[in-house]
Amino acid sequence: MTKRYFEDFAVGERFVSPSLVIDAEAIVAFARQFDPQPFHLDPVQAEASVFKGLAASGWHTAALTMRLMLACGLDLAGGLIGRAVEQLEWPRPVRPGDRLHVEMTILDLVPSSRNPARGTARVAIETRCHDGEVVQRMVAIIMVPRRPAAS
Amino acid sequence: MTKRYFEDFAVGERFVSPSLVIDAEAIVAFARQFDPQPFHLDPVQAEASVFKGLAASGWHTAALTMRLMLACGLDLAGGLIGRAVEQLEWPRPVRPGDRLHVEMTILDLVPSSRNPARGTARVAIETRCHDGEVVQRMVAIIMVPRRPAAS
Repeated sequence: MTKRYFEDFAVGERFVSPSLVIDAEAIVAFARQFDPQPFHLDPVQAEASVFKGLAASGWHTAALTMRLMLACGLDLAGGLIGRAVEQLEWPRPVRPGDRLHVEMTILDLVPSSRNPARGTARVAIETRCHDGEVVQRMVAIIMVPRRPAAS
Repeated sequence: MTKRYFEDFAVGERFVSPSLVIDAEAIVAFARQFDPQPFHLDPVQAEASVFKGLAASGWHTAALTMRLMLACGLDLAGGLIGRAVEQLEWPRPVRPGDRLHVEMTILDLVPSSRNPARGTARVAIETRCHDGEVVQRMVAIIMVPRRPAAS
């Protein structure tokens, strides 16, 4: 598989991942380990919460988004490495049975002023449910290596 | 345990969590599920990467930060619910054996203009390693219910 470098990307370019389904078991397993609150752990207690039903931890959605980003076909040389996130929000809860996919759009490509071997891509990353609604919205800064000079 | 409401917090207030140790097994297990890239999965291949050794996924650090935030003693009525993150960065890789804790500082407290039952807290959340270095820096917007009027 050919890996892609900074020079191979364009502002406005879009990437779409395959989808995956999140189930109640996975929601509860993640919550037990990382976000053990009643509305992520127990369907009955979740009914009485602000979520009005079992909802995935936002950090679970974020972790699944990472997995889906890797399946978007960016095929970045050196791997997909986020340096920072400028914005991250969860407009809607993720529920058991939701089928999620990711849509990435390149907003900016900036060569590093300090390191001639590198640049960064500013990327909008939307995680969408099968009903089309956005469940997570993110803008991330991703490290992108520049194509080495031909030898 | 007494739960705390919007009225019980003050700008500048600080909360510090206990600590936990992240090991190579946990780094690899998280990566297998959510971020399967060589530098998070395999110590040998990680040596040749930009991380120069096994490093935790940033989303693993973020998930552990959530767990540590819950142990900070905020005891928020209704639970600890993030609405959005304004900034999230990983200044340094997290390595096997790192002992992490979280320090939270309330930056702002804003009553909702639309919902008299709620406000938000803007909170700086630093995840630090045992050597004092920051491994994750975040500013999050947290939902905080207002104290119900005495009946």
